[in-house]
Amino acid sequence: MPNDSAHGIAYLGPQGTFSQLAAIRFFSVEDEASSMQACSSIEEVFQRVQDGEVEFGVVPVENSTEGAVNNTQDCLLSTPLHIVGETVLPIQHNLLCAPNAGPDQLHTVASHKQSLAQCRDWLEAHFPQLTRRECASNAQAAEAARDEQGVAAIAGEFAAGIYGLQILAASIQDHSHNSTRFLILHRQPDAQERRDASVPSDLPRKTSLLVATQNKPGALYALLGPFDHLQLDLAKIEARPSKKRAWEYVFFIDFLSLDSEQSKVDELLRALRPLTTSLRVLGSYSAAQNVSAND
Amino acid sequence: MPNDSAHGIAYLGPQGTFSQLAAIRFFSVEDEASSMQACSSIEEVFQRVQDGEVEFGVVPVENSTEGAVNNTQDCLLSTPLHIVGETVLPIQHNLLCAPNAGPDQLHTVASHKQSLAQCRDWLEAHFPQLTRRECASNAQAAEAARDEQGVAAIAGEFAAGIYGLQILAASIQDHSHNSTRFLILHRQPDAQERRDASVPSDLPRKTSLLVATQNKPGALYALLGPFDHLQLDLAKIEARPSKKRAWEYVFFIDFLSLDSEQSKVDELLRALRPLTTSLRVLGSYSAAQNVSAND
Repeated sequence: MPNDSAHGIAYLGPQGTFSQLAAIRFFSVEDEASSMQACSSIEEVFQRVQDGEVEFGVVPVENSTEGAVNNTQDCLLSTPLHIVGETVLPIQHNLLCAPNAGPDQLHTVASHKQSLAQCRDWLEAHFPQLTRRECASNAQAAEAARDEQGVAAIAGEFAAGIYGLQILAASIQDHSHNSTRFLILHRQPDAQERRDASVPSDLPRKTSLLVATQNKPGALYALLGPFDHLQLDLAKIEARPSKKRAWEYVFFIDFLSLDSEQSKVDELLRALRPLTTSLRVLGSYSAAQNVSAND
Repeated sequence: MPNDSAHGIAYLGPQGTFSQLAAIRFFSVEDEASSMQACSSIEEVFQRVQDGEVEFGVVPVENSTEGAVNNTQDCLLSTPLHIVGETVLPIQHNLLCAPNAGPDQLHTVASHKQSLAQCRDWLEAHFPQLTRRECASNAQAAEAARDEQGVAAIAGEFAAGIYGLQILAASIQDHSHNSTRFLILHRQPDAQERRDASVPSDLPRKTSLLVATQNKPGALYALLGPFDHLQLDLAKIEARPSKKRAWEYVFFIDFLSLDSEQSKVDELLRALRPLTTSLRVLGSYSAAQNVSAND
């Protein structure tokens, strides 16, 4: 038992979410109720990890169709937690309803706002008459489909199993390449490294930075210079409000490198310091291998 | 009457939203029911302008605390409409309830998700026990506060007036610099120019671009080069999923120029073409004058 005695995994719940599935896949665990804790919000996942109630947190950070999950980015900005891993799940949405119900009895379709958005065209074509109801999660929608007559849910197969629902229509998302990327969080930056020791070193690593620059012309261009000069591949750049002053931004930047390029990464960070007003390394971890354009 | 016979203004409704207030301020109109049309979604505002049911549309595009409004960006991506103006409103949130109610009788606080987020700390400090209810808009929340016992709403003073509510607590947003930027949409790129002819030419113009690049290392850095070389000030850059392939992005770029710099702008666009796989000028319009860090 290490000094840091926290164990267990907090995920964005309730039971049956893609976050839970991501946690199960990433850690190759069975669903053990004792070690997996469902949280009611992204903020709560961060809080439980920070308070040492659990060792790891699992939250969605980006969907390939709908974009960044702002709450997660804002929590990365406001807490000292580290990113120690990532995993990507292909998101297959299904229209689910109670086993004894039929499509003609439906009056409402419930799901998370992002999932309703991801199936917007399909719903318009097949069930334009159903009232859309936004829920806090797909799993909560699945619960409603189980408990309320006439309510269908959009959720994954995993949730269908947990809530005992039938699949009325499978794979109804508008974009077949729909995937979500999840982050693994920890209080220590190298927590996952100890477990990852067996990973071959020719796989790319991803490093996540949180950067603020002076609000002056050319600042962003100057900031990207060192990435270009060192030929380090920018995987992602995302602007978010700094929350300190109106219309000032911070940048979330992910870049890729090989283990053999560690000296380049060190050089990059040295080159970035004078170009930024603040620079935080959020984490450096094995890049998910299934982030390809065809997922 | 011009050839294009559409008239009127569609805004993100219902009555009493900040979008309606933005429309009233931008066009310096009184609230004329005949010319102002409340829409139930951002998509509907775009649709009505596109279909020629109204001449102008008014939608929120960015909040200084919570960031971009994704629906608006996605509609800019998927429709051919032009941005012909922008306006910024300082957002003062208030806790509102029915005139005959008191704080002790409240069990729920309703508002749009972004507004609940913008008042998160204040609510935790003063009303931790209230159930949070997410509504499609602040105005819908105000309506609920009028009609349902024990429900308070977070909304602006404008909504308080329209729904006949009392202000239990004023200016409860966590960040005093909280502002929202709204876009004015039209089918023709120069619609507002005809009205703007009296605007002095030494005020900055904002130009909005929608850009896609090849997904290869250094592409974004190369793209920003011409802005730097021509010393055109980047006001904003925002990445959004391309929706064509997973993990490919398009960029929304706003930059500022003076009327006297039009030749620079032309040169910029010429320089950008070979660096992009697609480049659309979404609009060029008078920059809102109240976008300062102290708003």
